[in-house]
Amino acid sequence: MSRHVSIIGCGHVGADVAFSLASQNLADHISLFDKKEEKAFSEMLELKDMSSLIHSHVRFDCNDESQLATTDIIVVAVGPKATEKTDRLNEVFETSQAVAQWVPKIKAAHFDGVVINITNPCDVITAHLAKLLALPQGRVFGTGTSLDSARMRRVVADTLGVATASVDGYVMGEHGESQFVPWSTIRVGGIPFTQWPAASGVDLMALEQQVRHGGWDILAGKGWTSFGIASATARLVDAVFSDAHSVFAVSAFDETLQTQIGQPAIIAAQGVVQPVPVELTDQERQRFADSAAVIKKAFASIA
Amino acid sequence: MSRHVSIIGCGHVGADVAFSLASQNLADHISLFDKKEEKAFSEMLELKDMSSLIHSHVRFDCNDESQLATTDIIVVAVGPKATEKTDRLNEVFETSQAVAQWVPKIKAAHFDGVVINITNPCDVITAHLAKLLALPQGRVFGTGTSLDSARMRRVVADTLGVATASVDGYVMGEHGESQFVPWSTIRVGGIPFTQWPAASGVDLMALEQQVRHGGWDILAGKGWTSFGIASATARLVDAVFSDAHSVFAVSAFDETLQTQIGQPAIIAAQGVVQPVPVELTDQERQRFADSAAVIKKAFASIA
Amino acid sequence: MSRHVSIIGCGHVGADVAFSLASQNLADHISLFDKKEEKAFSEMLELKDMSSLIHSHVRFDCNDESQLATTDIIVVAVGPKATEKTDRLNEVFETSQAVAQWVPKIKAAHFDGVVINITNPCDVITAHLAKLLALPQGRVFGTGTSLDSARMRRVVADTLGVATASVDGYVMGEHGESQFVPWSTIRVGGIPFTQWPAASGVDLMALEQQVRHGGWDILAGKGWTSFGIASATARLVDAVFSDAHSVFAVSAFDETLQTQIGQPAIIAAQGVVQPVPVELTDQERQRFADSAAVIKKAFASIA
Amino acid sequence: MSRHVSIIGCGHVGADVAFSLASQNLADHISLFDKKEEKAFSEMLELKDMSSLIHSHVRFDCNDESQLATTDIIVVAVGPKATEKTDRLNEVFETSQAVAQWVPKIKAAHFDGVVINITNPCDVITAHLAKLLALPQGRVFGTGTSLDSARMRRVVADTLGVATASVDGYVMGEHGESQFVPWSTIRVGGIPFTQWPAASGVDLMALEQQVRHGGWDILAGKGWTSFGIASATARLVDAVFSDAHSVFAVSAFDETLQTQIGQPAIIAAQGVVQPVPVELTDQERQRFADSAAVIKKAFASIA
Repeated sequence: MSRHVSIIGCGHVGADVAFSLASQNLADHISLFDKKEEKAFSEMLELKDMSSLIHSHVRFDCNDESQLATTDIIVVAVGPKATEKTDRLNEVFETSQAVAQWVPKIKAAHFDGVVINITNPCDVITAHLAKLLALPQGRVFGTGTSLDSARMRRVVADTLGVATASVDGYVMGEHGESQFVPWSTIRVGGIPFTQWPAASGVDLMALEQQVRHGGWDILAGKGWTSFGIASATARLVDAVFSDAHSVFAVSAFDETLQTQIGQPAIIAAQGVVQPVPVELTDQERQRFADSAAVIKKAFASIA
Repeated sequence: MSRHVSIIGCGHVGADVAFSLASQNLADHISLFDKKEEKAFSEMLELKDMSSLIHSHVRFDCNDESQLATTDIIVVAVGPKATEKTDRLNEVFETSQAVAQWVPKIKAAHFDGVVINITNPCDVITAHLAKLLALPQGRVFGTGTSLDSARMRRVVADTLGVATASVDGYVMGEHGESQFVPWSTIRVGGIPFTQWPAASGVDLMALEQQVRHGGWDILAGKGWTSFGIASATARLVDAVFSDAHSVFAVSAFDETLQTQIGQPAIIAAQGVVQPVPVELTDQERQRFADSAAVIKKAFASIA
Repeated sequence: MSRHVSIIGCGHVGADVAFSLASQNLADHISLFDKKEEKAFSEMLELKDMSSLIHSHVRFDCNDESQLATTDIIVVAVGPKATEKTDRLNEVFETSQAVAQWVPKIKAAHFDGVVINITNPCDVITAHLAKLLALPQGRVFGTGTSLDSARMRRVVADTLGVATASVDGYVMGEHGESQFVPWSTIRVGGIPFTQWPAASGVDLMALEQQVRHGGWDILAGKGWTSFGIASATARLVDAVFSDAHSVFAVSAFDETLQTQIGQPAIIAAQGVVQPVPVELTDQERQRFADSAAVIKKAFASIA
Repeated sequence: MSRHVSIIGCGHVGADVAFSLASQNLADHISLFDKKEEKAFSEMLELKDMSSLIHSHVRFDCNDESQLATTDIIVVAVGPKATEKTDRLNEVFETSQAVAQWVPKIKAAHFDGVVINITNPCDVITAHLAKLLALPQGRVFGTGTSLDSARMRRVVADTLGVATASVDGYVMGEHGESQFVPWSTIRVGGIPFTQWPAASGVDLMALEQQVRHGGWDILAGKGWTSFGIASATARLVDAVFSDAHSVFAVSAFDETLQTQIGQPAIIAAQGVVQPVPVELTDQERQRFADSAAVIKKAFASIA
């Protein structure tokens, strides 16, 4: 009955995932892992201090592989040593090896839960983990375009002067350069974005560029990004624990394109239940296929 | 800087609004009023007990009209003496007089905030209060079809096996018998409800009837309804306090139809910013106009 | 990994327990039971409407005894048909039989979790349930003086002008007339209550009477009490799910006095871990023993 | 009615304060400031992404000094360029100048609210700010030993196997090396810590050292600390906004010792209402005076 999450990788992202889960009461037990064991240990101490302050009851432990056996959800947040600031695909050789080192440990624990991958390039690493872990389809998925979708909602909301909560729609494709906004499907307050008076004359490609490069703008001043992706992950963890059957943009396996790729999908206790059959225009469908090709090529490079 | 709400009427609904606001930390100061002063006093004691248990800091007072002067939001939840179980419009003579008794007190306090009306028949009483209080347009609005919209999302979500959070759309028209679901605008996970495989062959009129009569089903076994409407009201209070510019289905003034009526509208610090210009089919537009006629006729009966 | 609660009895108290758990995200799955099945059904519909409004993912079902098999925590909130307003002990014959009817169903489901009893007279009915269910010691406990403790904190906080969260201490004994406040142990902001300047000259017996009769004051104006006890129960449910090892005043078995009785105890996944060894004055110890005698006599009357 | 916080300094601590306030809905409007304007801008973008994900309505802006005029609470989280890892007092020359640069801007805005200082050495910088700003007594206070108190509760809780929420008491003195735990006042579940069976034979000085050096253990593996202090600050902000009159360990002015120093105090809308008159042993009183001397000497060095 206890909600047990293991987080692999305690950099900014992994730590903020733990902070989000604990401060929002979305888990009961969090196990921290890092290749550098003192990092996981330090984060555990910080999180315990924090829990003491907010009267949270979450339990924490660190670097204890036996905990993987009772874990319900593993969050993979292994980071690259340095962030290449041009294209997330450059990180693929380093991070694919880094995540692979954890696979034997996960298997040894007979882990039978859900894996949510954050490590970039997200779609490729998710495919890599899915292949190595060989869990039932849907159990391994990635945060994909969930954060990009949030950025799209922010950009659209700012354009119209409405709340992000009133913007519906999802960014699709690679969590990277080849992603796109399927504008024909984006709605605000129940009506198409492009039909709002304030949206007339707006340069959609410029908006899309703001979405795509939202992360780089943050990196420029801060050096890393973590609150956004941590919050996205916390919501996905919540959806799995509560068997929500909620729709989120994630990196899910696409039967037609035969790859993990960002798209809206129904998330529940078993992970991805099924992608949502989005109606795209011909042009949007082409961009989706092009983005899939980018992911598949990168995946082939590490296979 | 303190978020101050006054609740007029401490029956099941008013009390549950206070409970929701306090337990979700959506207000800092709640003033309770009831014609029967001992009712407001008892609820205040209960709410203080509750606050003590959840370590909430909300302040409560009761039956103190001087508090109206510093109130930001007034929630009107004056109930009829008995619930006529056939049509909410039957209550109009009793409740229009009951709410009118509070108007001189609100005016005497030079109240300059937002009024959210729950009292039924919601659209008519909202129009009545708006006329009597003569605050700037948008400051007085009703919970309208917010609860009906939640019921629609529940019914649609159950049909497809998805979460209610993934259903977008709003019930429109009277919070009563003449309301309708504009099916052409209802979407799930970003695609039209009617395009989902599981929705094919579904009897939309039967679903709509489930939505419309959701309240009566609850009344039959419980004797009253309060959790739903209290939760809807709590979200509207939150939207006003945080100047959210979020879209909710409320009873807002419609310039074309010249009446308060349930429709999606942008809610912020000043109340209703503007209704959302929903695209309806010809048939849906007719049903909206028909519903407006029902409300206007009832309003004329008390004018 | 899913937090499953069953609530037996869907009167005001049981319904508000469900409302509290759902609106504060303290459970993932709530099963409702009532002798009058239509009551449980109506509450389920209300709770689903509410969940739709707050974007909660809690699942609900009703009157389905097979759900008891996967339940982690059973909350017993069976009410008497009418509330005798003089002494909770008068209800004992009616309520002891009412709760006993659920025992075979709980046993048939091979239920192996924790039972939290609210039904009054709380200490006696808790003892009755513990005997009938024969679960390991500590698994069956009552809300006891948890609500009375909250009332004491409210009364003390109001006396000093501080927040209830800064008052520490517990009401002990029967959840009824023979309860008492062990004043020597009550502290505010870390120092004894009686040492605060504002507490000098305060009539402790008058304060204690306010605590003891807090419920009757609410009953007088409202007709029932539910927010307070529901909130107390929600916190206990949270403590069990999160294996908190937190101290709460509950009705726990006392080895010395050989009865269930209200006292601070450590609450965790297995229910009551152990009572806290409070240091009482001689006079307080006598009042505790006297209160135990009242409970034991009432328990003997139904044995 | 809107809860407006300004955060000066957007390093790890300031950013995590904003993250905590937004993700726990403890503010409606957050203004970010940093000497490096691009840092504040990047954090604002991250926080907007995050808000979009959790459906929060918090508004953000950055580097706009006109916002100080409508701000209710200023949080000062200006960091030193490098963290000297031996004694927080070493930072005093650098940070006292860094915070002083913001004072003319705060005064120019006719700011009339509450200032919560985090910048180290906390007690000295708080005294410095209080002197420069010349607001009414109590309006400027520091986070002081709030985090140390949380660490003490963690260490005590771990010793007894209970929840931190059940440990009461406060670390006193400097937020630095001369702080101390007044063991005679620490209670668990209502009884003195030292009376618990599991506490017998425990080395109190060793526990105290764990508390004092909790931060360095975290620094060693992580390079900075932020979750704990951010969570402490969030609770203080909440206490001010809700006029809580709650007791927290903060750096408050002590009339007897004539300095800002860590001690339990009642926090409400006006900041510090009054310190709690803790009863110390002679030895503890001496340590408190010694710690005050350390703070006063450091303060004299920058006066």
